[in-house]
Amino acid sequence: MTLSWIDGLAADSLAVKDRGLAYGDGLFETCLVKAGQPLLFQRHLDRLSAGAQRLALNLDLPLTERECRSFAGEVGEGVMKLIVTRGDGVRGYAPASNATPRRILQAGPLPAYPEAHAQQGIRLFSCQTRLAEQPLLAGLKHLNRLEQVLARSEWQNADYAEGLMRDISGRIIEGVYSNLFMVKGGVLLTPDLRRCGVAGVMRAEILALAERENMPARELDLHMADLQKADEVFVCNSVYGIWPVLGIEHLNWPVGPLTRKLQHLVRGLLDI
Amino acid sequence: MTLSWIDGLAADSLAVKDRGLAYGDGLFETCLVKAGQPLLFQRHLDRLSAGAQRLALNLDLPLTERECRSFAGEVGEGVMKLIVTRGDGVRGYAPASNATPRRILQAGPLPAYPEAHAQQGIRLFSCQTRLAEQPLLAGLKHLNRLEQVLARSEWQNADYAEGLMRDISGRIIEGVYSNLFMVKGGVLLTPDLRRCGVAGVMRAEILALAERENMPARELDLHMADLQKADEVFVCNSVYGIWPVLGIEHLNWPVGPLTRKLQHLVRGLLDI
Repeated sequence: MTLSWIDGLAADSLAVKDRGLAYGDGLFETCLVKAGQPLLFQRHLDRLSAGAQRLALNLDLPLTERECRSFAGEVGEGVMKLIVTRGDGVRGYAPASNATPRRILQAGPLPAYPEAHAQQGIRLFSCQTRLAEQPLLAGLKHLNRLEQVLARSEWQNADYAEGLMRDISGRIIEGVYSNLFMVKGGVLLTPDLRRCGVAGVMRAEILALAERENMPARELDLHMADLQKADEVFVCNSVYGIWPVLGIEHLNWPVGPLTRKLQHLVRGLLDI
Repeated sequence: MTLSWIDGLAADSLAVKDRGLAYGDGLFETCLVKAGQPLLFQRHLDRLSAGAQRLALNLDLPLTERECRSFAGEVGEGVMKLIVTRGDGVRGYAPASNATPRRILQAGPLPAYPEAHAQQGIRLFSCQTRLAEQPLLAGLKHLNRLEQVLARSEWQNADYAEGLMRDISGRIIEGVYSNLFMVKGGVLLTPDLRRCGVAGVMRAEILALAERENMPARELDLHMADLQKADEVFVCNSVYGIWPVLGIEHLNWPVGPLTRKLQHLVRGLLDI
């Protein structure tokens, strides 16, 4: 049996009346675990905490942190997925005022991404599925992920390691399971996520690294025209770090020096 | 234990790796059951089938129908909730090509709505939560329902039996768990649901009734200005039928003759 815990106890099944199932009423985090430690864990906790506040989930954060650390200890090396739901529901959307959030932990192996993704770079599939604009949920890693499911269903060709998602208005937002950065004239640019998109832990880490390294960086609205003029493009997440992007559709980029520099810094954070 | 089945067998817990929990990757239907029969059941099946097609869920519809009918027989009288998910996931958004959808049935008692809601009518709470525009998911009763959870959390005052939801652009779309109709100059008007909203079974039934009764009816974009000019307003769903709407904010309406006529016809469908 794969390792999984519910509310601190080994369990691999949960109540059918859980509101995570009924409405996607909850949040999740996916952490890399090495040597029994969850990596970039404070950033994961910070995002979880912000999400719980936005959804008014009455989550016991210190308890959640302790449980995750114990679980990571058991996992040793791999990926730890934490799902937090509002807990059991009665009929209807109104959350019971005394609802107790449920904590679900699942372990998986380290993903076997080809080393070429990081070394030589990847090409992006150009997704037709657009992200809806919903400022109330933007940035959160919540459980309503049908847009990502639809987008990821658009391609099977393994030549594309990731897909690019735009919003309904055509702005570039993110990858299906990554955030996106571009470099233009030595400035690091990444999409503003106030209308949609997931504010990734690695994205936050890269913005913090940029500040520490005195690289100018901006969050702003970006379009295909900006991508066309970019000097470098890369995608990132907290499991694989950084993958240089070689191209999308008719556009092509070299793997640039800023991408390599950040990739080197990030690798240090993930290879302990 | 409350009655619940998973894939035709009595069970009240499901695998934590189910994609319904992970991503809200699935659909649901809530049916009234009387004398062991699910009511308006063909319309529920039609919507489920359309949703499964849109999400590329490989659902065995005849099997699902048989299971629902057997389950309703056990329930006797109450509410039957069917959830269909894409089944177990491996890591990542890409659905496994051989994923087997999971069928989850849960029973609940008949809801105890005050009779006054149907007799005298209700007032609507004016929700601040706006619906995002996502044509790819519009109309479906899918499991991504955080917008409804947020909207329903906006009020606790029992004076409001339902809340009105608009989209990001300000169009009137629906109630949190109902569809909305208005009457103007003898014409039945209901919001167009091609950008967002749930295409309710009772909404479809009312549009069919209107056609049969030679009442003119239109689906179109509607705004607060239209509501202001309406002669009658009502909300509907497949569990309670029709509730006249008396007002929202500073607006007020009488309970009108078309509302009463449709209410009478619908009552015949739900009181067997």
